[in-house]
Amino acid sequence: MNLVLLAADDFVGEARVRLTGRRLAHVRGVHRAAPGDQLLVGLEGGQVGKGLVVRLDDDALELDVALDAAPPAKLPLTLVLALPRPKVLNRVIAAATSLGVARIYLINAWRVEKAYWSSPRLAPANLREQRVLGLEQAKDTVLPELELRRLFVPFVRDELPAIVAGGTALVAHPVAATDAPRAPVAPLPLTLAVGPEGGFIAAEVESLRQVGFAPVSLGPRVLRVETAVATLIGRMF
Amino acid sequence: MNLVLLAADDFVGEARVRLTGRRLAHVRGVHRAAPGDQLLVGLEGGQVGKGLVVRLDDDALELDVALDAAPPAKLPLTLVLALPRPKVLNRVIAAATSLGVARIYLINAWRVEKAYWSSPRLAPANLREQRVLGLEQAKDTVLPELELRRLFVPFVRDELPAIVAGGTALVAHPVAATDAPRAPVAPLPLTLAVGPEGGFIAAEVESLRQVGFAPVSLGPRVLRVETAVATLIGRMF
Repeated sequence: MNLVLLAADDFVGEARVRLTGRRLAHVRGVHRAAPGDQLLVGLEGGQVGKGLVVRLDDDALELDVALDAAPPAKLPLTLVLALPRPKVLNRVIAAATSLGVARIYLINAWRVEKAYWSSPRLAPANLREQRVLGLEQAKDTVLPELELRRLFVPFVRDELPAIVAGGTALVAHPVAATDAPRAPVAPLPLTLAVGPEGGFIAAEVESLRQVGFAPVSLGPRVLRVETAVATLIGRMF
Repeated sequence: MNLVLLAADDFVGEARVRLTGRRLAHVRGVHRAAPGDQLLVGLEGGQVGKGLVVRLDDDALELDVALDAAPPAKLPLTLVLALPRPKVLNRVIAAATSLGVARIYLINAWRVEKAYWSSPRLAPANLREQRVLGLEQAKDTVLPELELRRLFVPFVRDELPAIVAGGTALVAHPVAATDAPRAPVAPLPLTLAVGPEGGFIAAEVESLRQVGFAPVSLGPRVLRVETAVATLIGRMF
């Protein structure tokens, strides 16, 4: 937690916030802060600044906050991810958020196991928490948009054209003939599709190609989705 | 497991291997293979090829293997990582291995908590297993070298000069004035140092600078170590 993310209802005075629960426990147990210390804080969706610890005990952390700086800019990037295994979902969401992805679609694909869609990790509260963890990691305040799309074909046919319009669209595909770019792409924004373990099937790649996605390869090494996403962002941003 | 990694003592005939334990369980439970199926296999430290399933039951998986191709090349890259929290250590090792890092040093730093050095995850068997998982993910067969260095100063003073000689050395440092390169660096090999949560302290950065490391920044977002490593590799390889 490199930034303590505040919500509007944390405020108990004009510049005073009172925090309990996870944030209190983290600041006590990990930061080991004490009254008089300053912490980096940010208002969800708003500015970042400093919070002076004025109280810290079993019951609450209270901070006097001054918010005066913009959070880091988002990347002009939409990720379209085949729904990962529950075990890796949390990490992918938090990592993508920390990297500054503006919008994430979790979609179905042939090789996504049906059971993944029943995972409790898809509950809105968990999807929100993972994004909050990513924001706190990266000292950001703006939640990326996150959408679930259980049906591949209607999403690709009816929604993706508008999402990719005017920008660049790439799909990571292990057997693509072209390597993923090693430099910023134009025009932006970029929409980047990453398949499930085992990849998108050929028919899915063809559907994506028909709405403007160019297949690109990351080379002979098959990477886990969170590693692939970070590597692709490193290459192109 | 995109490749079943074989050891010399798995062989029960000239081209026949017999596997039990984790690999058997994975091929049965996740691959759901059956006799007649072909799996990608590789001999540790050697070539990759195909394995034909000739037996698969509760007791063993037997494959007839033909090894005929080189594994993917390693990156000319040594990572020098401040020992991460035990919770993230496994992921970092596996991810770095999957990305093709040739050599990893886990070192001490001021902000590495002493308790991390007592983690059972530092046992050789675990460090080996995490690298094996990374190889199986990336269809590689060659374990990256992995070394632990509990003392920062002797390592930097006595060992690092020879490691970085003739190549490029960069240390990821949040407050560096220069951005990390967005293109391949020269001369290779590259040695890349990444600090603990909170970063290397100024004196450590200065020690690294004295043996040839240039401090570079990844921008305003603070990333987890495995995300930072993947992003840096994406940028420079």
